Amino acid sequence: MAGVCFRSVLVTGANRGIGLGLVQHLLALPNPPEWVFATCRDPKGQRAQKLASKHPNLVIVPLEVTDPASIKAAAASVGERLKGSGLNLLINNAGVLNANTLETETLKDMLHVYTTNTIAPLLLSQAFLPLLKKAAQESPDSGMSCSKAAIVNISSIGGSISSLTGWDVMELVSYRCSKAAQNMLTRCQSMGYREHGILCVALHPGWVQTDMGNAAGYTPPLTVDASVGGMLKVLSNLSEKDSGAFLDWEGNVVAW
Amino acid sequence: MAGVCFRSVLVTGANRGIGLGLVQHLLALPNPPEWVFATCRDPKGQRAQKLASKHPNLVIVPLEVTDPASIKAAAASVGERLKGSGLNLLINNAGVLNANTLETETLKDMLHVYTTNTIAPLLLSQAFLPLLKKAAQESPDSGMSCSKAAIVNISSIGGSISSLTGWDVMELVSYRCSKAAQNMLTRCQSMGYREHGILCVALHPGWVQTDMGNAAGYTPPLTVDASVGGMLKVLSNLSEKDSGAFLDWEGNVVAW
Ligand SMILES: NC(=O)c1ccc[n+]([C@@H]2O[C@H](COP(=O)([O-])OP(=O)(O)OC[C@H]3O[C@@H](n4cnc5c(N)ncnc54)[C@H](OP(=O)(O)O)[C@@H]3O)[C@@H](O)[C@H]2O)c1
Ligand SMILES: NC(=O)c1ccc[n+]([C@@H]2O[C@H](COP(=O)([O-])OP(=O)(O)OC[C@H]3O[C@@H](n4cnc5c(N)ncnc54)[C@H](OP(=O)(O)O)[C@@H]3O)[C@@H](O)[C@H]2O)c1
Repeated sequence: MAGVCFRSVLVTGANRGIGLGLVQHLLALPNPPEWVFATCRDPKGQRAQKLASKHPNLVIVPLEVTDPASIKAAAASVGERLKGSGLNLLINNAGVLNANTLETETLKDMLHVYTTNTIAPLLLSQAFLPLLKKAAQESPDSGMSCSKAAIVNISSIGGSISSLTGWDVMELVSYRCSKAAQNMLTRCQSMGYREHGILCVALHPGWVQTDMGNAAGYTPPLTVDASVGGMLKVLSNLSEKDSGAFLDWEGNVVAW
Repeated sequence: MAGVCFRSVLVTGANRGIGLGLVQHLLALPNPPEWVFATCRDPKGQRAQKLASKHPNLVIVPLEVTDPASIKAAAASVGERLKGSGLNLLINNAGVLNANTLETETLKDMLHVYTTNTIAPLLLSQAFLPLLKKAAQESPDSGMSCSKAAIVNISSIGGSISSLTGWDVMELVSYRCSKAAQNMLTRCQSMGYREHGILCVALHPGWVQTDMGNAAGYTPPLTVDASVGGMLKVLSNLSEKDSGAFLDWEGNVVAW
């Protein structure tokens, strides 16, 4: 990974869990990004704020991913900071899980989970598209890669329709539906943004020790470090042929 | 199909298109259902209303599928009409398509399409579950079938993540995401309702000459009659092994 440079990266939901881990790992790379944009709903008193005091290349951006006005403001502030250059990597990581069953799922919860996990990655990609296009145009590389221009949607094996993994442990209908739809979104983005040279991929981080990962009441097998380390290695190796794929933190293809 | 009896069937979105076709075909069966419940948003002045004057076994039920109160009222009125017996077949057919592109898709459209195509089939199945369970309990059959108790979600090949069929003709991001999520819902329902003896299936009707089918500006290859005739034949042959499957109007398996 030493050779790869993610020049500018934005991570949503960077306040804790996998998002925070991604930011920490990016900053610790031997070849760290020129800019890491860590977005948080509440940009004050954050764990990420502490990191920012030590890393002048880290910018905390306020962002509520379900609010189009907040997305617009975030894109404008990132654009300003980049002073005319593009954004190479957009990581749509923010997500929610609702521990409902088939019986207890409601209209309200279905809407909330879909808005956060599926619609937000669409709206964010629309808002950051000009900056991603700019990054692709600036790049001397002819193929596609995450150091050129890419959208990474953090998905879940819970969104695998064919496997229905973990049903006996947690039914999670709203979450499963939102992640299956998010996988469809990734496929649509890979088709729509191919002409702009933007790679799009869905990534399952594994079952990870975070607030969300712990929701089932068992300790997940993966630490945030192991998951994030694996994912960054996978991202650094992606090329054109991977656009539109659904991969896990070890680079294995996950079934739709 | 002559031997199969769908004793009581409810079809949503029966005002026009495939829903109306399903109702017409069911009433014309050599062995017609005892009750056909045709739900319409606007139960007055409907094409279905005309049919009702000729068919005493047809009941028009007002139903706005995105409104939980309307769903509750519909379930209560159907329950009353069934006088203590169950509902054998719930066909979630009502659906919307929005001709947006990846670029023009909005929060509002994403929410509207998801609510109609994905959340409504969930809420309807929850509301009609007691009647479906009753039908399964009343049935002398040991296996699963559409004449015992079943939920049929009218899906679309547009929801096939792997194939992304028709992308070059219409991008339809909101529609594709909603139908991929609806397929996940069908899988969840097949798992959750198996213990109650309720078969659940996702059915692609083909590309059909209806208002929705015509939206691409080409004439679709299938008439409503051909699609509906095919689907009813497929439904009459389903058994336990098909629960959770994604099939087309000819009975072929569609890829997730
Ligand atoms: N952990 C696992 O085992 C696992 C497995 C598969 C997939 N994933 C996926 O990995 C991603 C990260 O999950 P995680 O485990 O790190 O979860 P987490 O610990 O619960 O963290 C979720 C993050 O998303 C943010 N967020 C949620 N809603 C938001 C909103 N409306 N606006 C802005 N930010 C919002 C949260 O912000 P606040 O701090 O402000 O709440 C938090 O930073 C999610 O997409 C999840 O679906 C996780
Ligand atoms: N036609 C095709 O080629 C095709 C292909 C694949 C899948 N499908 C699926 O087949 C199903 C039927 O489609 P169609 O072609 O018959 O479409 P259509 O001609 O546009 O009819 C849609 C039906 O759904 C009803 N509906 C929509 N929103 C509703 C709501 N909120 N509450 C209650 N009813 C509502 C409409 O009621 P109103 O009359 O009141 O508007 C109408 O009866 C849909 O699920 C569609 O996704 C169709």
